[in-house]
Amino acid sequence: MRKLRVFNGITIDGYFTDLEGDMSWAHDHQDAEWAAFSAENAGGDVAFLFGRKTYDMTKSYWPTPQARETAPEVAKAMNSRKKLVFSRTLTQATWSNTELLKGDPVAEVRKLKQESGPDLLIFGSGTIVAPLAEAGLVDEFELVLNPRALGRGRTIFEGVKKTLCFKLMKTRPFKNGNVVLWYEPTA
Amino acid sequence: MRKLRVFNGITIDGYFTDLEGDMSWAHDHQDAEWAAFSAENAGGDVAFLFGRKTYDMTKSYWPTPQARETAPEVAKAMNSRKKLVFSRTLTQATWSNTELLKGDPVAEVRKLKQESGPDLLIFGSGTIVAPLAEAGLVDEFELVLNPRALGRGRTIFEGVKKTLCFKLMKTRPFKNGNVVLWYEPTA
Repeated sequence: MRKLRVFNGITIDGYFTDLEGDMSWAHDHQDAEWAAFSAENAGGDVAFLFGRKTYDMTKSYWPTPQARETAPEVAKAMNSRKKLVFSRTLTQATWSNTELLKGDPVAEVRKLKQESGPDLLIFGSGTIVAPLAEAGLVDEFELVLNPRALGRGRTIFEGVKKTLCFKLMKTRPFKNGNVVLWYEPTA
Repeated sequence: MRKLRVFNGITIDGYFTDLEGDMSWAHDHQDAEWAAFSAENAGGDVAFLFGRKTYDMTKSYWPTPQARETAPEVAKAMNSRKKLVFSRTLTQATWSNTELLKGDPVAEVRKLKQESGPDLLIFGSGTIVAPLAEAGLVDEFELVLNPRALGRGRTIFEGVKKTLCFKLMKTRPFKNGNVVLWYEPTA
């Protein structure tokens, strides 16, 4: 069965975005080591899962010349791979290789995981993580712990009604101050 | 000048406590490796700084036989060392070697740091961290990243009005799933 993975940047106070939806700080710590990791990480074939807000933000960044220059491998992956967007308001998705999903994220993902295809990757969309994690549908979390605190913002587990526990699989600290943490949910 | 250090457990969604003030989960992951680290960590001489709520909670735990059995070195340190409590409501502090502080935490800590004495350690008191961190008075953060998500709770940076940035000094992953992260604030 294809897996669902979550890749998200979070601050040391737990936020993937501030209250205004800004997550530009996640791209602040570029250096050669981080660029190599991002490129390597963008290597495997996946289908991206987005919420509508992150879809809009992502679509406005990755096809730009700036993105192609800053992180060419990631930009190439983002633009060419399959993208699935949860939205009740969008009527069409104009980014290359993108499909709209109109159903409830939990039901849609349950169905998608039964189908054949590459692993599913949530990349930056905090809002859809909580219901999917609570439903036990997320197989792996890869969190980039960014060395800053925002004071307030939104967490990827907002709205979860029970404590979720994880098994720490691996950690990797980077010279730029990021720490990448790999977790799997425990039953 | 004596340093101010912060030692706090946080979840992967950034919370040091849930909305009801419960932080008992921070003691959930006991094993030999973690016990050795806690004992070693309790070794240096420090004066503890508490907010009133954490003082009450801490006072109700560390003098008990259960605490002496679970983490004897930490219990010994907590009971014998100097403790300073910020409280407008308490009229006396009954725990051994404890002094009440009635002033504003920022002004009191600024004064304390000028005096001679052991380093100051905030241990679990989330509420007083934010104003002290924002005032640039915290020299080191030692955060124990606990492998769970609460869904909601309170962060140690709640109320901070500007983004705080940190330099990652060291990380240490533990078999029990905790990751200890050492940060220093950047100017």
